[in-house]
Amino acid sequence: MRYDFGSDNTAGMAPAALQGLIDANAGPAAAYGADETTARAADLIRARLDADADIRFVFSGTAANAIALSMLAGPHEAVLAHHTAHVCTDETGAPGFFGHGVGLIGLPGMSGKIDARALEAALDEPEVGHRQPPAALSLTQSTEYGTVYSEVELRQLIEPVKARGYGVHLDGARLANAAAAGFDLKQIARLGVDVLVFGGAKAGGLCTEAIVLFDKALGRRLNNRLKQAGQQASKARFLAAPLLGMLETRAWEDGAAQANRMAQRLAAGIATRSPWVLAHPVEANAVFVRMPAKAHARLNALGWACYRFDDGSVRFVCSWATEEAVVDELVEAISGL
Amino acid sequence: MRYDFGSDNTAGMAPAALQGLIDANAGPAAAYGADETTARAADLIRARLDADADIRFVFSGTAANAIALSMLAGPHEAVLAHHTAHVCTDETGAPGFFGHGVGLIGLPGMSGKIDARALEAALDEPEVGHRQPPAALSLTQSTEYGTVYSEVELRQLIEPVKARGYGVHLDGARLANAAAAGFDLKQIARLGVDVLVFGGAKAGGLCTEAIVLFDKALGRRLNNRLKQAGQQASKARFLAAPLLGMLETRAWEDGAAQANRMAQRLAAGIATRSPWVLAHPVEANAVFVRMPAKAHARLNALGWACYRFDDGSVRFVCSWATEEAVVDELVEAISGL
Amino acid sequence: MRYDFGSDNTAGMAPAALQGLIDANAGPAAAYGADETTARAADLIRARLDADADIRFVFSGTAANAIALSMLAGPHEAVLAHHTAHVCTDETGAPGFFGHGVGLIGLPGMSGKIDARALEAALDEPEVGHRQPPAALSLTQSTEYGTVYSEVELRQLIEPVKARGYGVHLDGARLANAAAAGFDLKQIARLGVDVLVFGGAKAGGLCTEAIVLFDKALGRRLNNRLKQAGQQASKARFLAAPLLGMLETRAWEDGAAQANRMAQRLAAGIATRSPWVLAHPVEANAVFVRMPAKAHARLNALGWACYRFDDGSVRFVCSWATEEAVVDELVEAISGL
Amino acid sequence: MRYDFGSDNTAGMAPAALQGLIDANAGPAAAYGADETTARAADLIRARLDADADIRFVFSGTAANAIALSMLAGPHEAVLAHHTAHVCTDETGAPGFFGHGVGLIGLPGMSGKIDARALEAALDEPEVGHRQPPAALSLTQSTEYGTVYSEVELRQLIEPVKARGYGVHLDGARLANAAAAGFDLKQIARLGVDVLVFGGAKAGGLCTEAIVLFDKALGRRLNNRLKQAGQQASKARFLAAPLLGMLETRAWEDGAAQANRMAQRLAAGIATRSPWVLAHPVEANAVFVRMPAKAHARLNALGWACYRFDDGSVRFVCSWATEEAVVDELVEAISGL
Repeated sequence: MRYDFGSDNTAGMAPAALQGLIDANAGPAAAYGADETTARAADLIRARLDADADIRFVFSGTAANAIALSMLAGPHEAVLAHHTAHVCTDETGAPGFFGHGVGLIGLPGMSGKIDARALEAALDEPEVGHRQPPAALSLTQSTEYGTVYSEVELRQLIEPVKARGYGVHLDGARLANAAAAGFDLKQIARLGVDVLVFGGAKAGGLCTEAIVLFDKALGRRLNNRLKQAGQQASKARFLAAPLLGMLETRAWEDGAAQANRMAQRLAAGIATRSPWVLAHPVEANAVFVRMPAKAHARLNALGWACYRFDDGSVRFVCSWATEEAVVDELVEAISGL
Repeated sequence: MRYDFGSDNTAGMAPAALQGLIDANAGPAAAYGADETTARAADLIRARLDADADIRFVFSGTAANAIALSMLAGPHEAVLAHHTAHVCTDETGAPGFFGHGVGLIGLPGMSGKIDARALEAALDEPEVGHRQPPAALSLTQSTEYGTVYSEVELRQLIEPVKARGYGVHLDGARLANAAAAGFDLKQIARLGVDVLVFGGAKAGGLCTEAIVLFDKALGRRLNNRLKQAGQQASKARFLAAPLLGMLETRAWEDGAAQANRMAQRLAAGIATRSPWVLAHPVEANAVFVRMPAKAHARLNALGWACYRFDDGSVRFVCSWATEEAVVDELVEAISGL
Repeated sequence: MRYDFGSDNTAGMAPAALQGLIDANAGPAAAYGADETTARAADLIRARLDADADIRFVFSGTAANAIALSMLAGPHEAVLAHHTAHVCTDETGAPGFFGHGVGLIGLPGMSGKIDARALEAALDEPEVGHRQPPAALSLTQSTEYGTVYSEVELRQLIEPVKARGYGVHLDGARLANAAAAGFDLKQIARLGVDVLVFGGAKAGGLCTEAIVLFDKALGRRLNNRLKQAGQQASKARFLAAPLLGMLETRAWEDGAAQANRMAQRLAAGIATRSPWVLAHPVEANAVFVRMPAKAHARLNALGWACYRFDDGSVRFVCSWATEEAVVDELVEAISGL
Repeated sequence: MRYDFGSDNTAGMAPAALQGLIDANAGPAAAYGADETTARAADLIRARLDADADIRFVFSGTAANAIALSMLAGPHEAVLAHHTAHVCTDETGAPGFFGHGVGLIGLPGMSGKIDARALEAALDEPEVGHRQPPAALSLTQSTEYGTVYSEVELRQLIEPVKARGYGVHLDGARLANAAAAGFDLKQIARLGVDVLVFGGAKAGGLCTEAIVLFDKALGRRLNNRLKQAGQQASKARFLAAPLLGMLETRAWEDGAAQANRMAQRLAAGIATRSPWVLAHPVEANAVFVRMPAKAHARLNALGWACYRFDDGSVRFVCSWATEEAVVDELVEAISGL
C-alpha cells in the first residue's frame, strides 16, 4: 500500500525535525520542561505569533484540543464547532472524556467553514436548564476540508462569541498550511483567540503539538493539569526538539509551502486529466474529489491509500514530503481509472 | 546544574533508541499503529515476556498506568498500592482523572515493597457502601525505593488478590533494572499479572511506555479507548521505534545493567567514603542516602541536582548513560561535604 | 399560569404516594436501604415485572438513566437512542457526565420510535478507532412523542443488538402509561432488556425512579456506585415509600389509566373542535398538536403553560391528576383561539 | 434492632417537615424549581444566614458536598479537609467522581477539628507539578466528632486560605446542631465561606440539603450543572417543602436543640453510670464513648445499633426524635453491660 496521500500523518519527520531531536539528545537535561530546548521552542512560537503566551508541548493533538476545550467550557456547557471539525468527528469523544461530559454543538457551513448566521442562531438560542448551553467556539485553521479562513471571516465568527464572554479555541493542526496560504499568524492573538493548538505533527514533527494560552488566566497550575492528564513529558526536551528544529530552519514554513504547492499540482492534474470535479476549493494541502465508489475502489486496488469523507468526496493529502514525481504518478493513476 | 543523578529521566535517548527513530523515519507508513515498526516492537516484547498479549505503545507512563488501572477498577472501587508508589504520590491524581474518581488505598511496607500482612488486612476489611472497596492491586518492579521483589514475594502478594477475583497491575517503569537485577520477565504472566506497563523512557527511550494486556478481555476496543484518552499516536511508528531499537540490540538490557552497576559503585563509594548510611538496599539503579539537610543543601550548591524523598532520604539515580567517572566525581563531592 | 398540561411533573404526589410517605414515617428505621419499606417496594416491582432483578431507588430519572447507561457502555463507546430521546435532548449531557464522556448516537424514526433499518445501519457501520462505536441501545417506553412500542417492534430492535453482545436499557419514565395502553410489563425481561428504569415520578410519586437490573452482573458493588454518584439515600425508606403506596393500591396503574383517558379526551376535543391536527398517534398520556406560533402564544397568554417540541408541534401532557373538567376547559380555550 | 442512636438518618421526618410536604402537594406547580415553595424556603435560609446567596435544593448531602467542592477545585487540584471529614471517609470517593479526580488532603486535629498549624503547614508546602496542590478548604460544622468550632477557630482556619485566594466550603449537615450549641449562623458569610451546604436531612427533613452560594460567581449556569449531575428535581417543590415546614415553624432549630439536650443527658448518664469515658467533648448531638469491643458487642446483642468509628470509640447520635425515656433506657443498658 502507498500511504503518500492517505493523510498528513503518514509522512515521517522532516529532516530538520529529526536533526532537532538529535541535537537535543546531547547529555543530561532537566526533566518535565525545565530545559533549554523547551524554552527556545516556546520563544520561537511566541515570536511567530507576535504575542505573549504560556506555551506547553503535549504529546498529541487529540489531547491538546480536548484539554484546551476543557479550559473554556464546563461539563454542563458546550462547545460550538463545525460539525465536521476533528473534535466532533475524529477524536472518539475526547472532548467529553477530558471535559467530563462537555457537549459539542455541530454547526453547518460550506467546505468546513462555520456559517456565521448559523453561529449567531446558535448563540441566540434561549438557555434552558436541560440543555448544555455554549461557552466556547472552536475553530480550525486550515479547515478539515482544506480551506483557509480569511481574517474577516474569523473576525465575524469570533466577535459575537467574545461579546457574550465566551472563549475561543483554534485548532491549528494544519496552521502551517494556512500560513503558507497567506494567513497572518500575528492576527491570531489580535482576533481574540484564547487558546491555540500550534501544530507540529502534520508539519513534519513527531506527534507533538503546542498548547498556546494567550489568556494566561486559563493556565492556573497548567503543569499539574497536564501531568494529571498524562501529557507532561518526563523527557520534555524531546517534545519541543522537533518543533525547535523546524522553526529555527523555517522547515515548518517551507514544508507547508511544499505541501500546498503539491496540492495545487494534484488538483490541477485531476481537474484537467480526470472526469471528476473537486469538492472544495484547494487552499491548503488537501484535495477532495467527487469520485464514484467504483473509481475509488479501483484506485485503492492500485495501491493508493485514500479515504472517503463524510461529505462523500475522496481526500488526498500532501505533506512536506510530497514530491512532484509522486503527484504526477497519482494523477496518472487517477486519469487512467 | 548537573542533572546526571537527579532522575532517570534526565538522560537522553540511548544511541540504539535514537537509531531506531532514525531507521523508522524512512518514507511514509500507515498511521495509528498499523505499521511494521509497531508490529515488530510488540513481537519483541511478547518474546521477552514469553507470553501472548495485546500491546499498545503510549506516550507517557502516567497515562499508561492510569489507563491500566481504569481497566481494573471502577470509579466506585479502589486500587491497592504501596503508599509510596508513583501512582499514589507522583502522578497528580492521574488514576482518579482517567478512572473517573477511582480510589487509591496506600499500603505500608519496607523499602517500597508492600507488606503481605498489610495487604491481607486490607483485603479482609468488611465492605461497606460508603467506602471504595479494593478491586485491584498495583505493584511496582523495581520499586520506588530501588528494591526488587523476588518471585516468591510477588506470588505472596498476587495470590490472595487473584483469589478474590481482583486484577493485578505491574508498573514496570524500571522493569529493565529489575531484569538486570535477576528478575525473570517470563514469570510476569505466569504470576497472574493482568496488565503490565513495560518501561521504555527510563530504559533509554523517548517517553513511550508499552501497555501489555495479558488479559485480552480487558482490551475491548482498546484503540478507541486510547484515542479518546489522547494516547493514540498518529505517527505511531515513532512511539515504537526507540523501544524497537533498544530491544533488537539488547540496549534495553545492557543500559539497565550499566545503570545498576553504577548504582552499586555509587553505593559502595558513599558507604565507604562518607559518614552517611544507605536508607534502602541497593538492588536496582537508585541509591538512597540518609543525609542531613545541610549536607544535601551543600551538595545542591555544588551543582548536583538531587531530591529528598518522603522517607527523608536523598535519592541518586543512575541510568544507561551514567559513567564511572561521573560516579566517582559525585562520590568525591559527597565525601567532601 | 396554569401548569396542568405543561408536563407530567407539574402534578403533585398522588394520594396513595403521599400516604405511603406518611406510613413510612413512623419511628426509626435502618438507613441506606436496609429497611422494610424499600424491601417491600422492590418485591412489588419484581412481581409486576414477573422477573428476578436487583432493584435500587434513586433520586432522579436523569441519574437513573445516566447511571444505567454507564453500566452498559464505556467512555470510549456510545449508546444508540432515538434522537429525540430524553437522554439525548433533555438531560444536559448527563450520560456524558456519569459516563465519563460516553457518546450518544441519535437515530431517526417516526413519532419517537426508533426505525429498525436505521438501527441496523448504525450497527453495521464499520468500526474505526477515531469514533465511539455502539455498545448499547437505549429505548423509551412510552416514547417522548406519546407512542407505545409493541412487543414485536421491541423485539425487532432488541434482537440485533443482543446478537452483537451489546446491552439494552429501557427508560420507563412513563412505563405506567405504556402499561395502561396495553403493554405487558412481564415481557420486558423476556425481551432481553438488561436495565430498566421503572418510573415513579411521572406516575404520581416523588422524583424517585427505580433502577431494575435484570442482568445482576452489572450491579457489582451497586450500593457503592450509587453512593459515589450521590444517589444513595440516607433515609432510603422515603424514596421507596411513595412507590410502595402506589403499587400496593394500584394507584400506579390507575393514575396512568386516568392520564391516558384524559389524553384521548383531549385529543378528540382538539381533533373535532379546532382546526389543528395531531402530530402523533395518541397512545399514552401526551397529545402533540401542529399549531401555529401565534395560536400557541395566545394559548400561553390565556395562562396555559405548554411547550413547542423539536418536531415543531405543541405538547400537552395529562397525569393521574388530570380531570375531565380541566380537559374540557382546555379544549374550549383551544377551540376559541 | 433499635436504630434510635445508630445515626441521625434513622429518624423519620419531623412533623413540621411532613406537614410542609403535605402543604406543598396541593394542585399543580411549575417544575424544576420555578415554584413558590422553593422560593420561600430559599428566602428563609437567606434570612437565617443574614446574607444574599444563590440557593438550590439537592437530593443528597453526598452530591451537595461533592458538587460544591467541584466548584472550588479543579481535577488537578486538591481540597484540604479534616482526615475524618465525611467527604474523606464516608462518601465513596464522591468528590473524585463529581470533581473528575480532584484530590483530598487529610489534615489532623483533635476531635474532628482541623489543627491550624497543620493547615498552615499544608498551605506552605512547595508546589510541584506531580502533586495536586490545595485550592480549597472544606470545613464541617458541627464536626464528625460532635464538636463545634468557635468563630475564632474558624477565622484562624479560613483567613490563611482566603489569603492565598483559595475557596472555602462548609459542610453543614449538622449545622442546626451547631446553631443550637450557640454558633451564630450569621457569621458564616462574614467569615468568608464561599459555599455552604445547609443541612436538612439530619435536622428532620427528607434527604434534601441546600447548596448556598455566597460567591454567586461560582454558580454560572447552576441549574444546568445540577441537572447534568442528576440533582435537579422535576417536582422541585418537594425538595424544598420539608425544609420550608421546619424553617417556618422553627422546628429546624427546636429539633436540633432537643437532639443536643438528649446528647448531654446521654453523656451525663454514661459518664456517671458506666465505667467508660467520653472520647470527645459533647457539644452537639453525638456522644462518643471509649468502650471495649466486648461491651460494644453486648450492646449490639441487646438490640442497640451503634458503630465503632475510626478513632476507636463507639458513637451514639441523637436526633429531633430522641426522647428522654429512650435515652434513659440506653443509659440503663450501657450501665448494665
